[in-house]
Amino acid sequence: MKLASLKQGRDGRLVVVSSDLAWYADAGHIVPTLQAALDDWDRVEGDLRNLATDLDHEVIPRERFHERDAAAPLPRAYQWADGSAYVNHVALVRQARGAEMPETFWHDPLMYQGGSDGFLGPRDPIPLADESWGCDLEAEVVVVTGDVPLGASREDALAAVRLVGLTNDVSLRNLIPGELAKGFGFFQSKPASAFSPVFVTPDALGDWWRDGKLHRKLMVDLNGAPFGRAEAGEDMTFDFGTLIAHAAKTRALGAGTIIGSGTVSNRDADGGPGKPIAQGGVGYSCLAEVRTVETIRDGKASTPFLKAGDTVRIWAEDDKHHPIFGTIEQTVEG
Amino acid sequence: MKLASLKQGRDGRLVVVSSDLAWYADAGHIVPTLQAALDDWDRVEGDLRNLATDLDHEVIPRERFHERDAAAPLPRAYQWADGSAYVNHVALVRQARGAEMPETFWHDPLMYQGGSDGFLGPRDPIPLADESWGCDLEAEVVVVTGDVPLGASREDALAAVRLVGLTNDVSLRNLIPGELAKGFGFFQSKPASAFSPVFVTPDALGDWWRDGKLHRKLMVDLNGAPFGRAEAGEDMTFDFGTLIAHAAKTRALGAGTIIGSGTVSNRDADGGPGKPIAQGGVGYSCLAEVRTVETIRDGKASTPFLKAGDTVRIWAEDDKHHPIFGTIEQTVEG
Repeated sequence: MKLASLKQGRDGRLVVVSSDLAWYADAGHIVPTLQAALDDWDRVEGDLRNLATDLDHEVIPRERFHERDAAAPLPRAYQWADGSAYVNHVALVRQARGAEMPETFWHDPLMYQGGSDGFLGPRDPIPLADESWGCDLEAEVVVVTGDVPLGASREDALAAVRLVGLTNDVSLRNLIPGELAKGFGFFQSKPASAFSPVFVTPDALGDWWRDGKLHRKLMVDLNGAPFGRAEAGEDMTFDFGTLIAHAAKTRALGAGTIIGSGTVSNRDADGGPGKPIAQGGVGYSCLAEVRTVETIRDGKASTPFLKAGDTVRIWAEDDKHHPIFGTIEQTVEG
Repeated sequence: MKLASLKQGRDGRLVVVSSDLAWYADAGHIVPTLQAALDDWDRVEGDLRNLATDLDHEVIPRERFHERDAAAPLPRAYQWADGSAYVNHVALVRQARGAEMPETFWHDPLMYQGGSDGFLGPRDPIPLADESWGCDLEAEVVVVTGDVPLGASREDALAAVRLVGLTNDVSLRNLIPGELAKGFGFFQSKPASAFSPVFVTPDALGDWWRDGKLHRKLMVDLNGAPFGRAEAGEDMTFDFGTLIAHAAKTRALGAGTIIGSGTVSNRDADGGPGKPIAQGGVGYSCLAEVRTVETIRDGKASTPFLKAGDTVRIWAEDDKHHPIFGTIEQTVEG
């Protein structure tokens, strides 16, 4: 089952989207918003699944689904907690600035609390008031949970995964060092994130969803050219079950909590940092990583951060090269 | 006007509470929840105020208001961002662990993104799975905003303050050093916060609300004994307008955003750290601060963190010693 929220009011209008993303059926007679559905999942899930089946069988009225009309599936949420599960990425960034990475980072997940009061839709521009802030994309996998009790095990946590999707976790890189030096984590350096047009139930992903990971390539294009083709199922040190259980160690998580993987990142086949796609590598899921590789290699970064007019595309494909979650496609607006 | 949410479902049932906190009138015919009211404030504010006036004039049906029936006024919220505006407190904590505080801390607010997917009601127990985590109270002032545009000025930010209240921002002190060392800020060290039974519009506070600060003593009792009587209007380096503008520097804030002051803390009259109430001082708004003062004075902390059975009371009073926001009164449950 694929779910989306068409732009309407603060929380959107819930629709069920066909497997091929071409059509939608209004779900308002079952439940008005995705948050309301997650709040009452056991009661509404069956009806929503029946609607999705009827839609795919073309036995109910349907409308064309246009990704540009979609808000983030949760246009606002009660929690957005982003991990940093591809520890390879963290190790690289540290290496570039000459900082040692504690060995514990391989066992104890990094996670920050993100702002969740307003997200960008998949086609919304990225507002950037000041290019000197160093605007970066971060292509990630996310899951949405139901209620997760305090102290949940990894297995219980995985069972609470309701939906899977993608995000562009926009970051203002030049504001990060100052904020992290203050010790309280990210705030101004993390403006609104964008999400994929649809979120998908794990069962609809079949074998692509296993071991708490999405086993598909995360496709990233920058200004129309291939930039990232990393395999999201590889080099993910902490699976989503582990990330959710980490978040729930000292408090319960409310239904509709979004948990992020952190920037997807693969080692190169030779064990070193990933190479650009033009050099036969799988590329990158954020600018910071290619800048890091450049810094290690050349002594300084040459790839610039995003500026007004730059475009970012993020998606994942099925075996016929059709987007699974739709496509995030954003232009930076100064 | 005073607003509360009686426990019901995930978001409570909005009621208007009389000025003396003795009575309430259901607001469901105007708007069902406080979040819905904040989403549509311009449309519903007048009707809610009329209801409050009628309630105070005893011309409508009314029910007894019991604080034990209240959830947090926003039982869950889309954003909880907590500042650390009493820089004196930060300086003290740093001094105790021999760390220098950067001079910039006096000009650039500290703020962290807190979890907002589920808050505790004013009489809810504080769940504590492991006493070795070092459970602490933190008594703070909070405001709730309407929509705040990206880049809002301090003045615009102050104009967006809809409600004022109190919080007990529960902290797990022994988990903080490890989390801050990882650089991503607080997560497991900040379980669910509790909020005062009612939130109050700024106009109803009269002269107690000015310059973006609450000018009342923040009363804290620990196990029935006076523990803190700090003046919230003093030593607040960053007023709420400045805190909100800081939060809105790189992104808009959604209606219903809760902004916290951080632990209220006063210098002693002699300019040094605050003294215990028993020694003629104004006491403390968290255990960490008294432990810090003990560490500076005696070489080690003697006041223990909270354990099962301990009780915490937090409130502020009008001139007749009646609570303005009701009383947070919680018992730690192991």
